[in-house]
Amino acid sequence: MSAEETQLLIRRIKEGTVIDHIKAGEALQVLDILGITGKEGEIVSVAMNVPSSKIEKKDVVKVANRFLKTQETDKLALVAPQATVNIIRSYKVAEKRKVELPDTFIGLLKCPNPTCISNMKAEPIVPTIDVVDKETPLLKCRFCQRLISPSEFRT
Amino acid sequence: MSAEETQLLIRRIKEGTVIDHIKAGEALQVLDILGITGKEGEIVSVAMNVPSSKIEKKDVVKVANRFLKTQETDKLALVAPQATVNIIRSYKVAEKRKVELPDTFIGLLKCPNPTCISNMKAEPIVPTIDVVDKETPLLKCRFCQRLISPSEFRT
Repeated sequence: MSAEETQLLIRRIKEGTVIDHIKAGEALQVLDILGITGKEGEIVSVAMNVPSSKIEKKDVVKVANRFLKTQETDKLALVAPQATVNIIRSYKVAEKRKVELPDTFIGLLKCPNPTCISNMKAEPIVPTIDVVDKETPLLKCRFCQRLISPSEFRT
Repeated sequence: MSAEETQLLIRRIKEGTVIDHIKAGEALQVLDILGITGKEGEIVSVAMNVPSSKIEKKDVVKVANRFLKTQETDKLALVAPQATVNIIRSYKVAEKRKVELPDTFIGLLKCPNPTCISNMKAEPIVPTIDVVDKETPLLKCRFCQRLISPSEFRT
């Protein structure tokens, strides 16, 4: 299958977000960290293990009519650091992003420690998780000081 | 989007299995019960919440170059009873199946009771799970007699 045919395995979208160059076999982790289950009603297409010109095989996720915010796509750095994000408007790439770990995730990730004060409904606290090592990567909850590895955010 | 366009949201496959008319938002459950994670290396495409001529919205899963056995697609009756299965050869539908609950699943589903003798590696036992109510549906392990609801088979 040529790279051109691969492009066509899932259809072009008119408006929305394309997450490309996901490591082969990791698309479901991408859906997971973005909180996409299909129950939200959005038109989503996924292609797994398709040939790619840049990497040997890759996965692709397309979400129609939804423009993922930079904050949301930054979360992808935890599960798909090599992914690229294209914002599509009228079938054209309106914006191209590399996913990047921010210094801090504010209100985007839940601390996996169930007894952390940021998980207590009684407290009006915004979960704040610092990235302490961008290479590994390794994170740390600002409230309970727990060190967190990316896999702990998966549901 | 017309039904014709929907067909094209994910590309036609030359050889393989198409699971169509999955209830909208249930595609990930279908992958789960078939044991498809993407790590197996198969080319898989998924479309969620696409318009359908038969039902208002639907999900579709296509697995290239793999012909799912009837025993495997029967498992779909637990999570996607209204789905249809098409076996594709040379771009044509070579076989069309409705998913149907068998009377018994032999060696296809694992009893969710961790202490069931069928889960003990020391015993050379083939897990055997009877469908005791096809309507609800409700199942029962032939070894530990535990009643099992379909959701218990999800990982």
